[in-house]
Amino acid sequence: MRMYDIIDKKKRGEALTDEEIEFFVKGFTEGEIPDYQVSALLMAICLKGMNEEETTKLTMTMMESGDVMDLSDIPGLKLDKHSTGGIGDKTTLVVEPVMAALGGKVAKMSGRGLGATGGTIDKLDSIPGFSSELTEEAFINQVKEIGMVDAAQTKNLVPADKKLYSLRDVTATVDSISLIASSIMSKKLASGADVILLDVKCGSGAFMREYESAEMLAETMIKIGNNCGRRTAALITDMDQPLGHAVGNSLEVLEAVEVLKGCGEERLTEICRELCAYLYIMSDISDEADEDKRWNEAYKAIDEVIASGKALDKFRQFVKAQGGDDSFVDDPSKLKQPLYKRDVYMDKDGYLESCDATKVGMVSCILGAGRVRKEDSIDSSAGIIINKKLGDRISKDEVFATLYTDKEDILDQAEADLIAAYNVSDNEAEARPVVIKRI
Amino acid sequence: MRMYDIIDKKKRGEALTDEEIEFFVKGFTEGEIPDYQVSALLMAICLKGMNEEETTKLTMTMMESGDVMDLSDIPGLKLDKHSTGGIGDKTTLVVEPVMAALGGKVAKMSGRGLGATGGTIDKLDSIPGFSSELTEEAFINQVKEIGMVDAAQTKNLVPADKKLYSLRDVTATVDSISLIASSIMSKKLASGADVILLDVKCGSGAFMREYESAEMLAETMIKIGNNCGRRTAALITDMDQPLGHAVGNSLEVLEAVEVLKGCGEERLTEICRELCAYLYIMSDISDEADEDKRWNEAYKAIDEVIASGKALDKFRQFVKAQGGDDSFVDDPSKLKQPLYKRDVYMDKDGYLESCDATKVGMVSCILGAGRVRKEDSIDSSAGIIINKKLGDRISKDEVFATLYTDKEDILDQAEADLIAAYNVSDNEAEARPVVIKRI
Repeated sequence: MRMYDIIDKKKRGEALTDEEIEFFVKGFTEGEIPDYQVSALLMAICLKGMNEEETTKLTMTMMESGDVMDLSDIPGLKLDKHSTGGIGDKTTLVVEPVMAALGGKVAKMSGRGLGATGGTIDKLDSIPGFSSELTEEAFINQVKEIGMVDAAQTKNLVPADKKLYSLRDVTATVDSISLIASSIMSKKLASGADVILLDVKCGSGAFMREYESAEMLAETMIKIGNNCGRRTAALITDMDQPLGHAVGNSLEVLEAVEVLKGCGEERLTEICRELCAYLYIMSDISDEADEDKRWNEAYKAIDEVIASGKALDKFRQFVKAQGGDDSFVDDPSKLKQPLYKRDVYMDKDGYLESCDATKVGMVSCILGAGRVRKEDSIDSSAGIIINKKLGDRISKDEVFATLYTDKEDILDQAEADLIAAYNVSDNEAEARPVVIKRI
Repeated sequence: MRMYDIIDKKKRGEALTDEEIEFFVKGFTEGEIPDYQVSALLMAICLKGMNEEETTKLTMTMMESGDVMDLSDIPGLKLDKHSTGGIGDKTTLVVEPVMAALGGKVAKMSGRGLGATGGTIDKLDSIPGFSSELTEEAFINQVKEIGMVDAAQTKNLVPADKKLYSLRDVTATVDSISLIASSIMSKKLASGADVILLDVKCGSGAFMREYESAEMLAETMIKIGNNCGRRTAALITDMDQPLGHAVGNSLEVLEAVEVLKGCGEERLTEICRELCAYLYIMSDISDEADEDKRWNEAYKAIDEVIASGKALDKFRQFVKAQGGDDSFVDDPSKLKQPLYKRDVYMDKDGYLESCDATKVGMVSCILGAGRVRKEDSIDSSAGIIINKKLGDRISKDEVFATLYTDKEDILDQAEADLIAAYNVSDNEAEARPVVIKRI
């Protein structure tokens, strides 16, 4: 078998065989096939696509390139929720404790963020003492003991993806549905969960700007998951504006706590509730046969663990289990505080019509909340609190948002960029629903 | 400017600007842009194409990456003829001396061959003493003195093409009209000729199997040449069977001499005559205003320099000017002789219906006439004489072909492969014309 022929075949738009996919993934991961051949193949894949069988095989081969977690010691179905990434997305921090409080087993590995804001692990790292580096044994034991864990991906989780992603990142071959789906799903599969709920974002702050491509990605990932024997489903959700009010690491942790306390921002609360309900349905927590009744039961159960404080207790338990100090839940000042704050006002009255959420993410990044390069460090207290949502009435005399940072010199730029990221209209405006479709 | 954005732009099917093309060609040639980014771009170019402006700019930028011959010291228009490559194509060895005998100035650099048979330089190297390595001064002086030269491409002729071709060769990105056209034309432009006649082959032994792609390549190269101020034209010619009877280096030199003596194989003679006539027309050798009369004048002049022996004399002059011993023209045994010969017979009577000319080339290659790798050496006496042409009546009692080689052990395989390359039919068959179209 020759890499040349594999490239040529894909260039002609033909489907690759299992053997060909294994040949190139293993050869590349082991350093036997050079970057320049793989990047040519990646471009051909971007432009000619891969069918369901190819994408599934690619995912499985990537998964097998490194460590695969064996969670069979943990009784019951293990749950995982994954977001394709958006601005202000802290739903994981809510969904995990709610599901654990409901008796689910949440076994999740999360990533650090590159770009606008941190990933879930970066957010959790803003809690004093919190550790995301767990051994496999500690990971499994924690799920057994308290029903949930969230750890950083181990170094040898899907090394094929690390190598492929680095190459895609510099060769403009990131935006292929098959390559994105296999990258995400290979890590989900390797992490060992039985039930995988995908939160596929679409809109101005998401990788998938259009609904159609988000739906295609969701469907592709669901097929892969199901083909590999995992119960997989997805929600397509809105990312035309940041989720909730907070963008930034510790700010988002605090906002998640608010949702767990039952007083979270409306849209954020809604999406968390939907994610939890879907996981509830997928994981057979209920014996109810009627579907409508099962959904009603799910919502009721979720509302109950929040109202009773059980979900918040679970969150505190989780923080402590991973070495964190949970006192910030009662006293946010226990978290690192930023040196500078600045209130931002809109320059006209009207209705908040649209938002370039990616630009909001960039503002958060320059404030210190995100990384431009892998080696950059994150300022856990940097970020933005945005008081208004799309459709809201805006007054130029009201505080629209507040910036938090340790870098005074970039405040003017950040303020101007944030204002420029929003469009205020004289006409009434409406935001689209936060949960767009259940798939 | 970032290479990433250039790749991404081409992936989206957009045209690259002059600056973007210069950026990537220079950056790659100078080693600043890595292979893996360039191979991704090459694949995007293969699949999304380049328009005429892009292809012209690419060609010019490649040309400028190394030495550009200045032939302005030679009075009059300098002529070049280039073939896209085929099996048994020895027309250059005929066209050059004919044109020089007609008063033209033929200034040509040729390549060595990789694959089935040698290139023109490999063929000339089969003449004892012949040297293809000339200084620029010697190159120019020889054209001034005898009207023709054929030298190996200098090391620094279009280094961008050398690097790009090596990468295309291993990344399945060879078959893009724009990339092929720019590769050929950058070398033609750098060689300095004013008049460029392209012989674009199509058929089973050519890179372009289909007429349509050959025509597209011809038109693309003509546009590039004209855009760069060179008089450029093309013939589309047949490569559904080897050209002439001989395939192999010294065998082809001897067959070219036969054409110069006026007793060459019919189709080979016809194509040489057409190429010469077209060059005659393009180079303004004639003052005749009427086009038909000009063509008639051209054929007459060509026939005359062959009949009079002037063309053959010019060939001998050329061989001697480059240090070669021309006595083989009278006594072929002066050339290296092969250790083994084998006559090949067809296994049935009938009509020669079709030929896979590439397979014939492979037979010639395993006999020793071609290179598989750049560093392989060539056996100048190896090759095949094929007595029959498509459409000919075949008898299994007649010698169909003769194999020549120094390697006895591969004769059985070569014989079987040669027979398998042809199809003998019970029905009468006809070959298509050797000159398919004048463009």
